[in-house]
Amino acid sequence: MGHQRSAPAVSAAMHTAMSAAGEVRGTTSPNPPVGCVILDSAGEVAGVGATRPPGGDHAEVVALRTAGERAAGGTAVVTLEPCAHTGRTGPCAVALRDAGVARVVYAVADPNPPASGGAEILRAAGVEVEGGLLEEEVVAGPLRAWSHFARTGRPHVTWKYAATLDGRSAAADGTSRWISSPESRDEVHALRRHCDAIVAGTGTVAADDPHLTARDPDGAPAAHQPLRVVVGDRALPEGARVLDAAAETLRLPGGDVDAALAALAARGVVDVLLEGGPSLAGAFWAAGRVDRVLAYVAPTLLGSGPAALADAGVSSLSQAWRLDIEQTTMSGTDIRISAVPRGR
Amino acid sequence: MGHQRSAPAVSAAMHTAMSAAGEVRGTTSPNPPVGCVILDSAGEVAGVGATRPPGGDHAEVVALRTAGERAAGGTAVVTLEPCAHTGRTGPCAVALRDAGVARVVYAVADPNPPASGGAEILRAAGVEVEGGLLEEEVVAGPLRAWSHFARTGRPHVTWKYAATLDGRSAAADGTSRWISSPESRDEVHALRRHCDAIVAGTGTVAADDPHLTARDPDGAPAAHQPLRVVVGDRALPEGARVLDAAAETLRLPGGDVDAALAALAARGVVDVLLEGGPSLAGAFWAAGRVDRVLAYVAPTLLGSGPAALADAGVSSLSQAWRLDIEQTTMSGTDIRISAVPRGR
Repeated sequence: MGHQRSAPAVSAAMHTAMSAAGEVRGTTSPNPPVGCVILDSAGEVAGVGATRPPGGDHAEVVALRTAGERAAGGTAVVTLEPCAHTGRTGPCAVALRDAGVARVVYAVADPNPPASGGAEILRAAGVEVEGGLLEEEVVAGPLRAWSHFARTGRPHVTWKYAATLDGRSAAADGTSRWISSPESRDEVHALRRHCDAIVAGTGTVAADDPHLTARDPDGAPAAHQPLRVVVGDRALPEGARVLDAAAETLRLPGGDVDAALAALAARGVVDVLLEGGPSLAGAFWAAGRVDRVLAYVAPTLLGSGPAALADAGVSSLSQAWRLDIEQTTMSGTDIRISAVPRGR
Repeated sequence: MGHQRSAPAVSAAMHTAMSAAGEVRGTTSPNPPVGCVILDSAGEVAGVGATRPPGGDHAEVVALRTAGERAAGGTAVVTLEPCAHTGRTGPCAVALRDAGVARVVYAVADPNPPASGGAEILRAAGVEVEGGLLEEEVVAGPLRAWSHFARTGRPHVTWKYAATLDGRSAAADGTSRWISSPESRDEVHALRRHCDAIVAGTGTVAADDPHLTARDPDGAPAAHQPLRVVVGDRALPEGARVLDAAAETLRLPGGDVDAALAALAARGVVDVLLEGGPSLAGAFWAAGRVDRVLAYVAPTLLGSGPAALADAGVSSLSQAWRLDIEQTTMSGTDIRISAVPRGR
């Protein structure tokens, strides 16, 4: 296996490339958020790059520009196989070859037929090419949504919810601010900054009047605002904050989750953050269209009030949606659980 | 502080004493479950003991018997200050003095006036006495329920529940076996073996027909069976398993949590495991009488079915019961959360 020959420097460079890719998540769709590190012939970092927004440079080109002549004889470490096709930008494989890179190590092979072949172009030019380094980490990390989209043709859906330990998303009188800790709320803004679209139901918009925008840690609007999507057939209240000019807002009819996802895919949406409410989340579950759960469970008990999830198509325990927990961590005083439906 | 002079051997001995005490939890009430280690004059373990069931020997006497003559000049390490009073057994302070122990180190001072004074008896006899070693750990551990009882006069109540990630204790059709993992179910039997009473409501008994007994890991009935307590005014179904001969069963009327706890205290119950259902748990919360929560949260979603907690006296988020999480661990595939109401 190629990656068994990889030096620790290459592995560290892949982690750097993953971080760079993670930072541009949400700004590259429908292109993949890719990270690239150029090591010079001595193994030192000569350039780091990540995918620019559509129409801009790919990660390899950004990293090569910084590296300049130090790329010659060096190693390119990339989260995704360099592309071989000329779209709005030139083929990255050619750029790497022309820069005189001696070796290319990538994590994930490009599953997209028109772009495949980058490794072959490089090998034909005498460049040493290895794939598969930290592949699982990259697929579970920065390329999660894009890999899912490439495989299924559907946007990747993360259902994020905040609830009490007894599963309530609000008290009996409707109060819900704030169930989760300040740290969790900050983290949700980071999630929003790194997705393509935030989806909520008309019921939630009517009840809570959420803004559905992304803020930076200092409270200012983030540079990248995801598309706001309101699903459902109820009219929105006049003056609803989701209708303001802070970001684009798309209305979609309720009742057909796959039609909604197809409409989003047609707009280049790859990574969806589903923020509720309970009925819309239930509709996504019933349709089998939740790919990841992010639960912020507050150490609080209510004993009444609406549940975080309703009408998910389950009537008996044997039909329950079973999850595999990826990670359980603390987010301030909340328990943060990342999980995926079993068998995905 | 005395414990700053304690050698590592004494600290290790206190941990051994805590383990010994933990093993007899549930079998000693209304007496405290105490552990004792006798170190000989060279610091080697000469004897380990724990409290025998009421009427039997206290931990110190058990440990002294094993240590024999090696106790002379040695150190007794005890989770609770040795008693000074003659009840069904002789005063432990006198037993330690008569055995020639040179030093006594205990964790928790005895708050119980008739028994207090053991340290004074020992000091008067020239024995070196230190208190407070690992006191917090012992109070949070084997002496948790007894310390609570000594302070409040009420049994300590642990509310244990199993639920899905969305807070359901059963599916819409009532199926609830098994929401939690085999590891969690085994752990619940360990909890039962180490409590004085298991409390459930008539609704749960009618719906689920639980046995409410403790089993050993091999599935056989445990040697110690806690008192089974069914609270509520509904008649129990004929042939309910909770009415069989496997353990004693007490019926108590519903509607008054404090009266129920007083009735249990009068029977010598110190440590209560509240197992549900949602309405009974809600009544205990509304009365402010839950001292600890043990939640087994399964990585499962239902979207319908009864909630784990109902009618807890909360209508607005500001009135929510806020918890401090003591520990979050995995129990098989479940997330196990131990928490206490904030401010307790």
